[in-house]
Amino acid sequence: MKQAVIVGAGLVGSLWAVFLARRGYQVKVFERRADMRSAGYVGGRSINLAMSARGWAAIDKAGIREKLEKVALPMPGRMMHAVDGALTYQPYGKEGEAIYSVSRGGLNLELLQIADSFPNVEFFFEHRCVEVSLDKPEITFENMAGGEVFTVEAPLIFGADGAFSAVRYALQRTDRFNYRQHYLAHGYKELNILPNADGTHKLDPNALHIWPRGNFMFIALPNADGSFTCTLFLPFEGEVAFEHLKSDADIQAFFAKWFPDIPPLMPHYLEDFKNNPTSSLMTLQCNPWQWQNRILLIGDSAHAIVPFYGQGMNAGFEDCTILDGMYEEFDGDWSKIIPAFDKKRKPDGDAIAELALRNFIEMRDLVGDPKFLLRKKIMAHVHAKHPEFLPVYSMVSFSNTPYHIALREDDAQNRLFEKILALPDIESRWDSPEVEAICLEHARRSL
Amino acid sequence: MKQAVIVGAGLVGSLWAVFLARRGYQVKVFERRADMRSAGYVGGRSINLAMSARGWAAIDKAGIREKLEKVALPMPGRMMHAVDGALTYQPYGKEGEAIYSVSRGGLNLELLQIADSFPNVEFFFEHRCVEVSLDKPEITFENMAGGEVFTVEAPLIFGADGAFSAVRYALQRTDRFNYRQHYLAHGYKELNILPNADGTHKLDPNALHIWPRGNFMFIALPNADGSFTCTLFLPFEGEVAFEHLKSDADIQAFFAKWFPDIPPLMPHYLEDFKNNPTSSLMTLQCNPWQWQNRILLIGDSAHAIVPFYGQGMNAGFEDCTILDGMYEEFDGDWSKIIPAFDKKRKPDGDAIAELALRNFIEMRDLVGDPKFLLRKKIMAHVHAKHPEFLPVYSMVSFSNTPYHIALREDDAQNRLFEKILALPDIESRWDSPEVEAICLEHARRSL
Repeated sequence: MKQAVIVGAGLVGSLWAVFLARRGYQVKVFERRADMRSAGYVGGRSINLAMSARGWAAIDKAGIREKLEKVALPMPGRMMHAVDGALTYQPYGKEGEAIYSVSRGGLNLELLQIADSFPNVEFFFEHRCVEVSLDKPEITFENMAGGEVFTVEAPLIFGADGAFSAVRYALQRTDRFNYRQHYLAHGYKELNILPNADGTHKLDPNALHIWPRGNFMFIALPNADGSFTCTLFLPFEGEVAFEHLKSDADIQAFFAKWFPDIPPLMPHYLEDFKNNPTSSLMTLQCNPWQWQNRILLIGDSAHAIVPFYGQGMNAGFEDCTILDGMYEEFDGDWSKIIPAFDKKRKPDGDAIAELALRNFIEMRDLVGDPKFLLRKKIMAHVHAKHPEFLPVYSMVSFSNTPYHIALREDDAQNRLFEKILALPDIESRWDSPEVEAICLEHARRSL
Repeated sequence: MKQAVIVGAGLVGSLWAVFLARRGYQVKVFERRADMRSAGYVGGRSINLAMSARGWAAIDKAGIREKLEKVALPMPGRMMHAVDGALTYQPYGKEGEAIYSVSRGGLNLELLQIADSFPNVEFFFEHRCVEVSLDKPEITFENMAGGEVFTVEAPLIFGADGAFSAVRYALQRTDRFNYRQHYLAHGYKELNILPNADGTHKLDPNALHIWPRGNFMFIALPNADGSFTCTLFLPFEGEVAFEHLKSDADIQAFFAKWFPDIPPLMPHYLEDFKNNPTSSLMTLQCNPWQWQNRILLIGDSAHAIVPFYGQGMNAGFEDCTILDGMYEEFDGDWSKIIPAFDKKRKPDGDAIAELALRNFIEMRDLVGDPKFLLRKKIMAHVHAKHPEFLPVYSMVSFSNTPYHIALREDDAQNRLFEKILALPDIESRWDSPEVEAICLEHARRSL
């Protein structure tokens, strides 16, 4: 009998259960938290997700697109809000391309229901993984409701249990396990913009909204119910920082100075600010992702990243696509699939971690920089005429090109635009044939 | 009453106990292993230590130099052994400067005895740290002999429990703890050259011996008893690697090809090779090193490094010197000492980690490179005439200059010698006034 254990019923664990079920596996999924279908989703510290091509590709391959399309709102571009209220709009890609705003809770709920509809998938909620045997094909859980501890036979274990993965902790004890966790100096706080009385959105729902302020920023992503899930990203310590936002007066003065247009959209923001936790942001890298061809880390447990490229979930879903592709390629032989996946995918995990860190700087800072806006304009202009000249954002969000190639291309395009933006009078001839030719020459050599 | 708990009775823990005892503290030292004074030292995986200026400075400050001088053998230079048996000698510093070969077991034994001679120091061997409370000034141990678990009041805790520190594991669970462990692709194996029948050394005892072979190397450090402690550093996997050294024939062919002069010195090398474990080599970095001004990591638990600069123990001992200096500066106020130490010392921990990795490349590879030997010759020549032109090796090994300054100087000297070695006919005019002037100009600007 083909059987597998998945630890974690989050986004990646639930989706991977669908893939394995379709391959005829008996799948047992263990989750520390309660079943959100009955217990409800615990919000307050969540950032909305931006589903892009890699996420959709996995969902297509799993055959569940139509069930998920209804919870996803297209965001074809970003809307930047200056302190004086001025708006600047930038499309993310070409006509027809968009990233999709999805609430984490809503998506997880849908995926759970889909996975649970397979007769060969069994969920165990409120089950904490207490030990992963390195010697034997076994894994031990504690039923947190009853307290009993029991061991399951598990020839194949997938650790989809997130950044603080219990499965990874077991691997971390083995010799020569490389590991790095690194926190940003910034934290984040969730806030919300509720719908208008008639259920409509208070801001344009067809955009990701950003209030870039140099070293910090505020963002808002639309939900299908007319609300926006918002996030404030701010350093923990420093001149302008969470540490100074304690009293009502502190918080009010902060918004009045930096985000004067936001309080009218969020009459309840003071309460939310004080009630919602301030969470931290981590990059996690490790190597290897597997143990003896029978335990494999996928998603955040292998490669947690900061959220600024909107790729955390997309990368985890792409893990599923690639694994399932290798399942075909190696005819279901896990002793080949698991090492091949580890080898192929690790450089991509490292690359998207770096790209996500770079995009934080872009979002919070560069989007207010005229030189950077000019670069974006040139790229969009040339890309529209010549699709082969592909901006890195498009490569990451609208293609399935391996992330490590996108990172290499990001380095190359940074060098390219250092040259282009140094051209005399570039402001007046950004759309000249000469600039276009330089970009096309770059594209030709990148192939 | 002034009281402190030290976790770990290794080199740094024992030395730090002496410092605290001299400051009038009641010190309890807990060690997982058995007392080596009765149980004997468990060898087989140890690399001899090279005590240099920072180690001696700490030992001087603790007032115990004369007790330790007898176990240390001066090594004023390194002797390189080519495959054909040709020897090249390089002094490490100026006339009168040397690093000192010390066996880890011997040094640890001496330090234990010295610390134990203080009435206010108490040792608890075979005691495993099972929990460090983050909320209360408490720490919990298991007596491994009897099995009982007990909690000790501990307003001040020093984690000197090495690379796999239990104290650090407690800190690792806290939010925003940065952590990185990275293994080399190389492992190492201890071997030994025994004394001649008359007790004399089989090689020159006044040198650190290196057999550099590009990607791998063999080293030998003298002991006072006429023996040498040797270490083979070799990749785990690859063309020439531990993975291929399984049978007697494999091992013999390997030594015959790469180290033909070694087997005659070590008639028992085959047995030792098979009996001694192959150990791995890790760099460990974390941040912060402390918790709430009352728990502090020192030595390897905060900054484990690879052994190639001979600075692991020296760095740990220097932690003690600096901490004790801050004890005076802040008049014994740990709420000031601990954060100040963490802030000041962390960049030095990172710098020596990087320098140690660089020195591996130097030892195994560059010491056989004519260009590199020329660089060393020029540096020694100018340094002898103008002591203010200080080679980085001297800065690290024969001074107490903070490591982060030495790292910066290493970068600067690398750029300097790129320029110098590119001069036409440098081979014939390496000792010319022109080259000397370039070096002095560099030294003047480095000040």
